[in-house]
Amino acid sequence: MEYRKIRDEGDDRETGIQDVESLREKSVLLSGAVLDNRLASVGETKTDSHRAKAKWKLKSVVTLALTILTSSQAILIVWSKRAGKYEYSVTTANFLVETLKCAISLVALARIWKKEGVTEDNRLSTTLDEVIVYPIPAALYLVKNLLQYYIFAYVDAPGYQILKNLNIISTGVLYRIILKKRLSEIQWAAFILLTAGCTTAQLNSNSDRVLQTPFQGWVMAIVMALLSGFAGVYTEAIIKKRPSRNINVQNFWLYIFGMGFNAIAILVQDFDAVMNKGFLHGYSPITVLMIFNHALSGIAVSMVMKYADNIVKVYSTSVAMLLTAVVSVYLFGFHLSLAFFLGTTVVSVAIYLHSAGKMQR
Amino acid sequence: MEYRKIRDEGDDRETGIQDVESLREKSVLLSGAVLDNRLASVGETKTDSHRAKAKWKLKSVVTLALTILTSSQAILIVWSKRAGKYEYSVTTANFLVETLKCAISLVALARIWKKEGVTEDNRLSTTLDEVIVYPIPAALYLVKNLLQYYIFAYVDAPGYQILKNLNIISTGVLYRIILKKRLSEIQWAAFILLTAGCTTAQLNSNSDRVLQTPFQGWVMAIVMALLSGFAGVYTEAIIKKRPSRNINVQNFWLYIFGMGFNAIAILVQDFDAVMNKGFLHGYSPITVLMIFNHALSGIAVSMVMKYADNIVKVYSTSVAMLLTAVVSVYLFGFHLSLAFFLGTTVVSVAIYLHSAGKMQR
Repeated sequence: MEYRKIRDEGDDRETGIQDVESLREKSVLLSGAVLDNRLASVGETKTDSHRAKAKWKLKSVVTLALTILTSSQAILIVWSKRAGKYEYSVTTANFLVETLKCAISLVALARIWKKEGVTEDNRLSTTLDEVIVYPIPAALYLVKNLLQYYIFAYVDAPGYQILKNLNIISTGVLYRIILKKRLSEIQWAAFILLTAGCTTAQLNSNSDRVLQTPFQGWVMAIVMALLSGFAGVYTEAIIKKRPSRNINVQNFWLYIFGMGFNAIAILVQDFDAVMNKGFLHGYSPITVLMIFNHALSGIAVSMVMKYADNIVKVYSTSVAMLLTAVVSVYLFGFHLSLAFFLGTTVVSVAIYLHSAGKMQR
Repeated sequence: MEYRKIRDEGDDRETGIQDVESLREKSVLLSGAVLDNRLASVGETKTDSHRAKAKWKLKSVVTLALTILTSSQAILIVWSKRAGKYEYSVTTANFLVETLKCAISLVALARIWKKEGVTEDNRLSTTLDEVIVYPIPAALYLVKNLLQYYIFAYVDAPGYQILKNLNIISTGVLYRIILKKRLSEIQWAAFILLTAGCTTAQLNSNSDRVLQTPFQGWVMAIVMALLSGFAGVYTEAIIKKRPSRNINVQNFWLYIFGMGFNAIAILVQDFDAVMNKGFLHGYSPITVLMIFNHALSGIAVSMVMKYADNIVKVYSTSVAMLLTAVVSVYLFGFHLSLAFFLGTTVVSVAIYLHSAGKMQR
């Protein structure tokens, strides 16, 4: 239960928890941030085609990093479940994830300052006008995570996993409404297919129970999907509003509010447990790996928001879900179902259509 | 078993067996043939836009008729299963289906001759050059139906229903190769989705067993899909080769060979049963309804080949499959699964993409 909670939060928020594979990704991400800076400073001397190529490369690298990190996240969850349960506080783990992300952002910034000096774009200090919107995504996730405790009165955990695919649709709709970016008709069709394909790939013999979800359960699932979608789209809006601003500064401010909200969550939910059993009670090496993985995934999400968009993020995490299942066959001897193959086919066609739909716009 | 066999044959061949609903369709189909004739005779006085509109209308009517007939075919099968099994000979039923189709074609021709006289296009007599290709589809179906008895050594009946979705892909591929008609990339994507969507809609808790199909089973399923696809595409080639030729004459020659091949099948398979128990042994009112339904479906398939194509036929029969499931909820209290909703979503998007892909070609 504890692990599932951290997983649900991780899936939506891409906050908190790294495995051996991702240690390599960490250097990729940091070099990504450095590359970005190089681009901004020596941009003028480059031709447009070179710049477009470098931007495309950066976009691909961060998307690949997010896919691998999200996928290894799910594998760590399965691994931790097999290793037995550890009764640590989810709120403290989330707080550490936010703290680690702040620390990584500061380390990246320190390197940049050393190399290029402090500029208008990479200084840490900010204005109220810039910073005032940063707590909003964190607050939205907090509300969503609180709702999460109540939805289980209406839906069981596997049913909730199915309903969470509504996030794909809500992200697409809010991306259109809030960011006012257009998707072509073919891309909308692709988005519907992505939702249907992901859900199909997750089908099992108990999935039909989700059809018996009462009305309140559906309403809550839709509200949660909208909150999650809105938080994602709003984060993109904040980050894209100042394109020249260094991503590490933007991340720092996002994560510092994340730390604050998670500190409040510790006080409200786990004050007694932390006081009696200690802050790190029940932590295992796998918990630490998960905290690292979640932190790097969170940074990868910010990078995708900066250099790509929420749509790319949704495709990336969907592919990660399928990748996890394939890797689990080798790691844990899982069996792939016919539904999984059909879902994967539909998701693959959706990815093709998303790019084919773009070209004809 | 007997019913399944007639069903499998019916699904692929759209030969033989009518219910109350289709009695209405019969008049629609016959008026379709009349409409076609009217079009040919007064075509010159019509503008091109009028002609295109009438052609589109005719195409829609025959497609709708095929969808409703195919759907009621499947409902008749469920109904007959509920009513108990009748041990009639499938070969005699198929022979009667072909005979009924010949008779309907002749009645339609007689009306046209009476109204417009015998012309080059609607005369029944033919040349060896024209008629020599007509037995080929019937022969292909015969081989396919013989193979059908052997595939059950490798796959169970529900598994075979899943594998039969390979027909969709084989029809698309052979349509491209033999008729040399192009599908856009988006339309190919739609075709893959149609296959995946239909299979998803049919998923149940035992579907994963099909993944254990031995190599020989896969080979046979693919060969059968190719035979079935080739027969369909070849029929379209025959019918479209002489566009001005009256469809009822073309149908007559197709079905007369169908009668011949089915007569051979009676001799080979059911000679003893027919001799001892009589030609119509084990027939029930439902069997008679099924024979009428199959005959009208077969005519609808020919009409779709003449005025539309194999691709439209595949979409039409896929929609019929989904329609059958929805109608069965009301008629037989069936439950729809989550997989069915997901499959229906994917098929709906495939239909949209097929037409969207056409426009941009």
